[in-house]
Amino acid sequence: MCDQLRQDYLSCYGHETLKTPNIDALANMGVTFDNAFIQSPLCGPSRASFYTGRYMFSHGSNWNNFPLRVDEKTIGDYLSNFNVRTALVGKTHMLVDPKEIQRLKIFSDAELGIHLRECGFEPYTRDDGLHPDPIVDPDLEYNKYLSSKGYNDSHNPWNYAANAIEVEGKISSGWLMRHCSKPARVADEHSETAYMTDKAIEFINDAGKNSWCLHLSYIKPHWPYIVSSPYHDMYSKEDIKPVVRSSAELTDAHPVHKGFMDVSYSKVFSDDKVRDTVIPAYMGLIKQVDDHFGRLMRFLSENEYLENTLIVFTSDHGDYLGDHWLGEKDLYHNPSIKIPLIIYDPCREADGTRGSRNASLVESIDLLPTFIRFHSQESMPYRLEGTSLLDTLRTGKELSRKGAITELDYSCREEARRALEIEPEQCRGFVYTTKCWKYVMLEGYDAVLFNLIDDPDELINVVDDPNNRDIVQECREGIFEWLRKRRTRNQSEEEIKSLPRDFEKRAGIMIGVW
Amino acid sequence: MCDQLRQDYLSCYGHETLKTPNIDALANMGVTFDNAFIQSPLCGPSRASFYTGRYMFSHGSNWNNFPLRVDEKTIGDYLSNFNVRTALVGKTHMLVDPKEIQRLKIFSDAELGIHLRECGFEPYTRDDGLHPDPIVDPDLEYNKYLSSKGYNDSHNPWNYAANAIEVEGKISSGWLMRHCSKPARVADEHSETAYMTDKAIEFINDAGKNSWCLHLSYIKPHWPYIVSSPYHDMYSKEDIKPVVRSSAELTDAHPVHKGFMDVSYSKVFSDDKVRDTVIPAYMGLIKQVDDHFGRLMRFLSENEYLENTLIVFTSDHGDYLGDHWLGEKDLYHNPSIKIPLIIYDPCREADGTRGSRNASLVESIDLLPTFIRFHSQESMPYRLEGTSLLDTLRTGKELSRKGAITELDYSCREEARRALEIEPEQCRGFVYTTKCWKYVMLEGYDAVLFNLIDDPDELINVVDDPNNRDIVQECREGIFEWLRKRRTRNQSEEEIKSLPRDFEKRAGIMIGVW
Repeated sequence: MCDQLRQDYLSCYGHETLKTPNIDALANMGVTFDNAFIQSPLCGPSRASFYTGRYMFSHGSNWNNFPLRVDEKTIGDYLSNFNVRTALVGKTHMLVDPKEIQRLKIFSDAELGIHLRECGFEPYTRDDGLHPDPIVDPDLEYNKYLSSKGYNDSHNPWNYAANAIEVEGKISSGWLMRHCSKPARVADEHSETAYMTDKAIEFINDAGKNSWCLHLSYIKPHWPYIVSSPYHDMYSKEDIKPVVRSSAELTDAHPVHKGFMDVSYSKVFSDDKVRDTVIPAYMGLIKQVDDHFGRLMRFLSENEYLENTLIVFTSDHGDYLGDHWLGEKDLYHNPSIKIPLIIYDPCREADGTRGSRNASLVESIDLLPTFIRFHSQESMPYRLEGTSLLDTLRTGKELSRKGAITELDYSCREEARRALEIEPEQCRGFVYTTKCWKYVMLEGYDAVLFNLIDDPDELINVVDDPNNRDIVQECREGIFEWLRKRRTRNQSEEEIKSLPRDFEKRAGIMIGVW
Repeated sequence: MCDQLRQDYLSCYGHETLKTPNIDALANMGVTFDNAFIQSPLCGPSRASFYTGRYMFSHGSNWNNFPLRVDEKTIGDYLSNFNVRTALVGKTHMLVDPKEIQRLKIFSDAELGIHLRECGFEPYTRDDGLHPDPIVDPDLEYNKYLSSKGYNDSHNPWNYAANAIEVEGKISSGWLMRHCSKPARVADEHSETAYMTDKAIEFINDAGKNSWCLHLSYIKPHWPYIVSSPYHDMYSKEDIKPVVRSSAELTDAHPVHKGFMDVSYSKVFSDDKVRDTVIPAYMGLIKQVDDHFGRLMRFLSENEYLENTLIVFTSDHGDYLGDHWLGEKDLYHNPSIKIPLIIYDPCREADGTRGSRNASLVESIDLLPTFIRFHSQESMPYRLEGTSLLDTLRTGKELSRKGAITELDYSCREEARRALEIEPEQCRGFVYTTKCWKYVMLEGYDAVLFNLIDDPDELINVVDDPNNRDIVQECREGIFEWLRKRRTRNQSEEEIKSLPRDFEKRAGIMIGVW
């Protein structure tokens, strides 16, 4: 999993100047999903959905570091049923509720406490990716690693080497985007991407031939947009995709869209000079990921792991990069919510689909059921809300899902929220994406509708067109039905269906007997 | 709280032959709510809503003994913040998830384990009310009590004395409704209702002048419909209310209504002989509750508790008693979902509303916020989904709620579910009640609409009347909006609103800075 990698910045998804041959090779070995969406356009909630197999509405972890409920199960819990060692290398942004840990008198450093604190992962190398001085962990492994490699002119080489630049002997911050065209102060082999790849290989060697599941969670191409040589100047402004925005978006903006256009990072990203500087670095970071991913794939191939290892390449959300006059993610356009998703299934049954593309409406919560189905034909745990993709991977058949759901909760974007002058409760939205339409409900505001066939760039809101009344109604019904069917019941279908006939009478409870 | 007491079987709610002077006296001291609804028409989920202050959709405990999630807080947790001792005497039907207790390595007999197992109550005298031989707890306190009082001709006097009859020396089961006109084999003073009242008084004496909250949860008038002398023949068939049903309901039934009309207990209750025998006993059980409630009120008065004790009289749901050709509860008509709710507020501010009636659409989840507001003006815990009634109690003003929500989940009514041939997931419904209309969504079926003004008995489904199209749309929107606003986010509004301006920048995280 990459962080903040939008779908269209890979050559297998059509990028014309950014060549990603190693990721493309995976696409040739597996299935490439063209309509894959995340559950929420922010690291924390999106990842919580990947890991729990549940929508944000169900898991409730609506923002980075909003804790997960202590009884919410994750990939590690589910796969442990099949004796799979489930480990993390890289970023998660997940926490379990510390108040509950205290209330339940759980020793946080004992095995159970660690399992809960790490949300079900074995934290082989956990690194949540952002370590500026005010919040840096003094024991950060990557900092120790950098120090050992000679980057020891500061106490926080993450900040002053890996995400910094140097001009004429003066160190400057990699956080400042005007520096993005300069190389990072670490060599490629010591970059975060290289380091996490090393750790991934180390873990796999350690796991050996026992069953394992590795969540290799690259920290990049998420900002700070700073990359080691030679990636820093591999691309120029001539290589970047044309910006997708219109003047009508500025003059006739939806209030929520306008609220986000007005925040500082969107204004900065609406400046062509910024895009011309930042996007080549973003592309360099992706190219770097592709190279190290290739190294990992060669390791897997040489050690005969490709025969029995399911491999997924994906991302937790996208990056506007100035499209629609926006920076960051948060909102509902495809640069934010559409992700790359490539899956290699090693089994022979999947030979017929290798190298194919699939247009199914896929959600990130479909991955966990896919992993479970890879191990077992047993009935799927009730609380999982996605659909296994294994059948699709092996037959090419499309999923029956009519609309994909993405939820918005921008209550913690305090700059936007204060500008909009709304309560946190109102900062919510539901995006319903079909193959032809995208409908966005925004609490307290008018809705938004895009015709994805006529207007794939999502520039024209057609919600008020009377011809679209039926479509609007259909999309609203889709969201309404989806909400009614959330898996909130604390008992599975299977448990209910296995109630014996007359179970009450057997217990001696005779209801209404004359 | 009574169990299975419908609203219209109290004289203060208009019953003409069943006089309940002690409950009526409370009504004269407080406010009587005419439109109070439970969240779900079954003991377990209804009570889980009372105790957690959350809708069934949010707490997930959709059937009796479906465990509550381990981090779901209840009245005992909330009131402990005000040093209130919160105790239970009687029935709850609540469990915490035993699998989670085991997974979290919580010692179930230690203080924390008991707190969780008893869902936040101090189990002063817990008695879930149904103890037939196959499931009787050998240590049941009430059985020990009955034995000590001389009812020791069986190992389970609950079953063979309190809920049994005797004819010519032969003991017969009180479960069989043909026996309902006979007296129970225990004297009134040893009945469950008397016993729980004794225990309530004992608890209050024990609590003394410290702050306490007692959930006195009467087991009756829930079946077995068997009552001690002299209540067993206090009423006859001449005293019962006319049955509410129509032949059109039989011939033109909604499929779900029909499914429930066809189950055994509904067929039995559709027989006038049964109603004529059972309902007088049901009335006797209520009269008995009224008498013992009067005894409790005298105790409170004599010991000067009325000056500072908030008192609520209510029920967890109703009982069809043959209305609409149905027995039990489960469905959406008022005999099932409308409850008595009388609240006495001891404070002077409430003097202006004493003896008044209030037409607000009240939900059972409003009680917990009322109790909290009684103790504190602080902001209400985020996860609570109801509204404090304290302001209404003190000003008489109506709540602003436009529609009350009741959720149905009949998946465990296996006789009905099998007859309908549907999956558990489909056994769900949402009832939206306004002052004029009741709209019922039933998954997989057509909806139901009643005009409560023209047809207060809910006999005519007018959902297909084209004149009602706007009403149907409005009610659907009401349910849709309600669903979107569920409190599923794991962080409170307050916590979000207290984020300092530029909290990310303060942490050293500079997003989009050139």
